[in-house]
Amino acid sequence: MESKSLRPSASYSFLLRLSYPNKIGMLAEIARVLSANGGDLGAMDIVTVHLGQMIREITVNARSEEHAKLLEEAVAQLPSVTILSASDRVFLLHQGGKIHVENKVPLTNRDTLSMAYTPGVARVCEAIAAHPDLAFELTIKSNSVAVVSDGSAVLGLGDIGPAAAMPVMEGKAMLFREFGQIHAYPICLDARETDEIVDTVARIAVGFGGINLEDISAPRCFEIEEKLQKRLDIPVFHDDQHGTAVVVLAALINSARLLGRELASQHYVIMGAGSAGVAVAKMLLKVGCRSIVVCDRNGIIQAGRSDLTPIKQWLAAHTNPDGIRGTAKDAMKEADVFIGVSSGGRVSAEDIQGMREPRTVFALANPTPEVMPEEAARYAQIVATGRSDYPNQINNVLAFPGIFQGALSVRASRITEGMKLAAAEAIASCIPASEVAPEYIVPSVFNRDVAKGVAQAVAQAARKDQVARA
Amino acid sequence: MESKSLRPSASYSFLLRLSYPNKIGMLAEIARVLSANGGDLGAMDIVTVHLGQMIREITVNARSEEHAKLLEEAVAQLPSVTILSASDRVFLLHQGGKIHVENKVPLTNRDTLSMAYTPGVARVCEAIAAHPDLAFELTIKSNSVAVVSDGSAVLGLGDIGPAAAMPVMEGKAMLFREFGQIHAYPICLDARETDEIVDTVARIAVGFGGINLEDISAPRCFEIEEKLQKRLDIPVFHDDQHGTAVVVLAALINSARLLGRELASQHYVIMGAGSAGVAVAKMLLKVGCRSIVVCDRNGIIQAGRSDLTPIKQWLAAHTNPDGIRGTAKDAMKEADVFIGVSSGGRVSAEDIQGMREPRTVFALANPTPEVMPEEAARYAQIVATGRSDYPNQINNVLAFPGIFQGALSVRASRITEGMKLAAAEAIASCIPASEVAPEYIVPSVFNRDVAKGVAQAVAQAARKDQVARA
Repeated sequence: MESKSLRPSASYSFLLRLSYPNKIGMLAEIARVLSANGGDLGAMDIVTVHLGQMIREITVNARSEEHAKLLEEAVAQLPSVTILSASDRVFLLHQGGKIHVENKVPLTNRDTLSMAYTPGVARVCEAIAAHPDLAFELTIKSNSVAVVSDGSAVLGLGDIGPAAAMPVMEGKAMLFREFGQIHAYPICLDARETDEIVDTVARIAVGFGGINLEDISAPRCFEIEEKLQKRLDIPVFHDDQHGTAVVVLAALINSARLLGRELASQHYVIMGAGSAGVAVAKMLLKVGCRSIVVCDRNGIIQAGRSDLTPIKQWLAAHTNPDGIRGTAKDAMKEADVFIGVSSGGRVSAEDIQGMREPRTVFALANPTPEVMPEEAARYAQIVATGRSDYPNQINNVLAFPGIFQGALSVRASRITEGMKLAAAEAIASCIPASEVAPEYIVPSVFNRDVAKGVAQAVAQAARKDQVARA
Repeated sequence: MESKSLRPSASYSFLLRLSYPNKIGMLAEIARVLSANGGDLGAMDIVTVHLGQMIREITVNARSEEHAKLLEEAVAQLPSVTILSASDRVFLLHQGGKIHVENKVPLTNRDTLSMAYTPGVARVCEAIAAHPDLAFELTIKSNSVAVVSDGSAVLGLGDIGPAAAMPVMEGKAMLFREFGQIHAYPICLDARETDEIVDTVARIAVGFGGINLEDISAPRCFEIEEKLQKRLDIPVFHDDQHGTAVVVLAALINSARLLGRELASQHYVIMGAGSAGVAVAKMLLKVGCRSIVVCDRNGIIQAGRSDLTPIKQWLAAHTNPDGIRGTAKDAMKEADVFIGVSSGGRVSAEDIQGMREPRTVFALANPTPEVMPEEAARYAQIVATGRSDYPNQINNVLAFPGIFQGALSVRASRITEGMKLAAAEAIASCIPASEVAPEYIVPSVFNRDVAKGVAQAVAQAARKDQVARA
């Protein structure tokens, strides 16, 4: 996967530990060399000064791993400068993993031990054995989510397997904790058969309040989610599907309002018929949109095609009411909203220009969007991507922490369509109507009110849909 | 399960929140009533004083749940005293679970987000995909253990199922964290077939550094552990078996030394042929003991019996070299070491008196030992139990944190016999030879040097046994 950005960034950040004679001008020269070679300087800390020798630790952001190496070599060539170590900050951060399990109380004396463990714990076990619902109060089932993946569709890397997926699942758990105050734990599965995955997750679900499926490839993910939802009485939620759809809907709510349009009156083309594309299409249908055309790599999905998987046959039956045929570019001619959930570089500025006006473009492929926002902005009124370095970042973290928080707070047995719609509306309304603007249609991921607002709305919707148990 | 102790204890501790007129003598009267009824007073904190009314929170230890109720009612009858609330401190502690997942770094800005999650995390995934062993460095696989149970043999409660087992597994995770600095997570399985359990654990093992099996009933536990050990390349350890055996051996090392005896020259009777009994027998055989007789509920295990499970047939073939028959009491006549790993109240002081001298008695059934230590001490030179309120507490927490810590530190692929023996010797030698005494044959569970010493010894043994990979 190519993830070079054009600018230096924290994702290629490294720490240089240098030793050099403590003379005026040395640091300036080091800084000059790094900057001249395109490095973005961060902190420059003194580690120690001893016998005329200075040891500094310098943070540098590079454009890529190759660029980082180039910068290191440039510094190494400076006379009297020795590189003591060069550490990739991303890898440093990942040393030993990114999450910890901590005890709620320290076990430092017999009394606490006998309350948290034997013999006191036995009474708690007996209480749950007599009333199983007490598990939701007396164990971490009250506020825990399993983040489950088989590593078959990880980020833009594809099928890298469960071990290599762990850093992403740990990161997802971090997001649950940071934004939703939920204790999530990563479970990567060494399994590929649908029924093996379903059986495994169903068997470990007892101690969890919810299951978040992540980075499981389409179309297997649809069946896996469905079967688990049937089998379990806790929420099962594939974020790549529904988290994306919820945030897309939130953004559309605000963009349509801005353009003075009704959601249901717009003409949508969805590029990509994987997890996200299918879920977005279903969400749009749910809110009454009818003019929806979905495209995959082979073009427009329509009933005449013979190469459709079951889920794509469903799409053919429920979208594309005019039965148009052809390529994605053909579909775009009829649309005023483009939603890209496929891969980078598939759409040109001219394709955007050929759309109906006013034009809304969500180019959500990561890390390279279907079309670069600068290009799309030449012809589109509203542009959004999945990237943090452009306005209007459509990021699932706006949705899943609050959705689970709301669901867990009322012990919802599942996440209903009503709860998802409530989440989308809550996200959209985090921006006061007067502040919604073409470059501000979704709140920032660091807006701490989002998860709270989403959780409240979702809890309320759970009660309305009668799936709340507390 | 009866777990009443004769004395008040923290496992029946409750918080009384009381309101009463703030007059001299009121608190003394409340204290008097509680003490007169056998309550053990703890803290007596002022919550607030307002308009002549005092609100206090009083901690009281009771003997049992019934006794706690009695104490509450006695206080309620005092004139002008109102009970605002009475909270069971054990249940309070368990509210919402006992462990938390925490992030190693806070995710409060875009830079950290892009290093801990997308896009930076992708490079870490790629590195692991190219070199799978890097999972041991870059994920929690470096220092995590799954605490796995199906709830079929929990404490003295028996088969209470996976939901009711959660508090014990959370507690076990707490012990791993407190004593071994290991991040353990509880996984309770809704499964009973051996192969279902083996398949499930094998499939989730990818993200863990080790598997601790807990409270899984015999004889299923032997096959489950064996199959998982074959299938996985990380340590799989059933603590009820091996943790118990290691600590028993450590205690025997010190007790034998104290009595001037060789381990292999003593005559052992083991009461109980479940997880612990089988493991203790195997451990004794491993260190060269031959005079071992194991008893189950139907008496002495010998080759002539037709009712033996496969594991008990194995015991019959490898223990009881003289082929004696009869009851446990018959076996005790020939023994000088009694190891009870069965259930309470099975042995009398006279049975102890009938043993060969010098007599060593480990009565480890919990919470009620096979024979009460006061009774055993009438005739035995050395007495140990599993209880924290008597000397010589034989507690698995002396073993499993250090064993896993040592194994994980060298990335051992399994826990060998040599590693277990090394652990036992390390535990025994935590007590300087000059300090070993009849009432001090095992270190205290709060002795922080134990896990450290065990970990070092186990790591060394792992290298010696060539199972270390780091």
